[in-house]
Amino acid sequence: MNRLSLNQITTKHWTLPQAVQGCVNAGIPAIGLWRDKVAETGLAESARLVRDAGLTVSSLCRGGFLTATGAGSRQAALAENLRALEEAAELGTDTLVMVVGGLPDGSRDLTGTRARVAELLAELAPHAGDFGVRLAIEPLHPMFCADRAVVSTLAQALDLAEQFPTEQVGVVVDSYHTWWDPQLAQQIARAADRIAAYQVCDWTLPLPPDTLLGRGHVGDGHIDFRTLTHHVTAAGYTGWIEVEIFNEQIWNTPGDQTLRTMIERHHTHVVAP
Amino acid sequence: MNRLSLNQITTKHWTLPQAVQGCVNAGIPAIGLWRDKVAETGLAESARLVRDAGLTVSSLCRGGFLTATGAGSRQAALAENLRALEEAAELGTDTLVMVVGGLPDGSRDLTGTRARVAELLAELAPHAGDFGVRLAIEPLHPMFCADRAVVSTLAQALDLAEQFPTEQVGVVVDSYHTWWDPQLAQQIARAADRIAAYQVCDWTLPLPPDTLLGRGHVGDGHIDFRTLTHHVTAAGYTGWIEVEIFNEQIWNTPGDQTLRTMIERHHTHVVAP
Repeated sequence: MNRLSLNQITTKHWTLPQAVQGCVNAGIPAIGLWRDKVAETGLAESARLVRDAGLTVSSLCRGGFLTATGAGSRQAALAENLRALEEAAELGTDTLVMVVGGLPDGSRDLTGTRARVAELLAELAPHAGDFGVRLAIEPLHPMFCADRAVVSTLAQALDLAEQFPTEQVGVVVDSYHTWWDPQLAQQIARAADRIAAYQVCDWTLPLPPDTLLGRGHVGDGHIDFRTLTHHVTAAGYTGWIEVEIFNEQIWNTPGDQTLRTMIERHHTHVVAP
Repeated sequence: MNRLSLNQITTKHWTLPQAVQGCVNAGIPAIGLWRDKVAETGLAESARLVRDAGLTVSSLCRGGFLTATGAGSRQAALAENLRALEEAAELGTDTLVMVVGGLPDGSRDLTGTRARVAELLAELAPHAGDFGVRLAIEPLHPMFCADRAVVSTLAQALDLAEQFPTEQVGVVVDSYHTWWDPQLAQQIARAADRIAAYQVCDWTLPLPPDTLLGRGHVGDGHIDFRTLTHHVTAAGYTGWIEVEIFNEQIWNTPGDQTLRTMIERHHTHVVAP
């Protein structure tokens, strides 16, 4: 339990105060926050609530979306990410999860789009350093390459991150997005202290009509969490294990019940010896 | 047109004789056959039909499914693949497309499953050599890793193929399965004369409820075919460009119309200067 964190998207229908109270009730010591939920409650009030509850904020979701073309869109993306960094700092987390964005509308220029991500990261990284927050690049599953994230593998995320100081840019290891990767073990070892977050949920089939929402509780699908956690731990990561699940059915389950399942699966599948 | 081939799944509701006649009518010089369609018409009759029509058989789909556990299942898989090799030889094609199979039911052992694929390939490869047919390992998109193919990247397919003589084991470059791969250009260059087949169709969104059927005509989606074809050509591949589309709507379109669209897109998106 001492490394377990609730990513609040897992209890999507809870407000931030409800999610904080849910963690306290369940004995979960950390929470990953989402910017829309923080905005709903107010930044200062959100920061106060988690602090007073004694919770650690394991991460803030999310920055990114760096792939639009044109000077105006680029400036807007930078400004938005600076706000996200500022919010992360105020909430007391050292990790801003970055979903980099997909191909711009009508574009087939994957190479150019990926290059643009690198350029904008270069502008953002020093600011992250100033805020004491790390940009955590999240490779998304290749099925989201066109529409959500042109960063598709851990190797690619590391190629980007390694252009910057470790304290400014890291990577997210998310089980759902990376479990299939033949290079996963070696890239996790390579990542070492670049690992800024470890997020878990399971690959379940069939995928639902909205493929974003196909993720299952740890243990309900095809991923070997014991081995994955072993690799992450062997790489030196001792941080939070954040449960992040996008799933309509789980969202419609009472939050307290979801947290009980999370805790049970954490023990039986993630940290079991 | 002189490199264009119809993979007959693209006109799923055509029998083999209809597909052969369709190619002749449209001036398409080659066809990729499927074993179930060949069986329906009969092996000898199928071979006669394509030969008499003057078509080249660019490939036979498909062998593989090498991941089941247990001696019985393993022997059954080997026997089935030997039959597929024999059919390929009789049909006069030098290429058997291999979809290696997903995780066995209830298994989370991805590493072990991948190792089993390598073992069975080692048993099959010499037989392929005897038949003068090449096993063409097809990496499938990572979203099919659990249920269809634990070979997910071109690099991984090449790691397997390179354990065997070039004439026995090659790889398939399929646009749909590989377009997202940050290592694609370098792995295609590495593949060189291991490229046994180049298959094309487009990545379109949203994915349909059955994610297998989400593929579009070349030009309808997010893939840059000109650049991809350039890489494949630069690697030395001068073989067939096979259009293979799984899509309910396209299957319900009259075959002749589908072939006209194929030809048009081939000119405007694939081989255009």
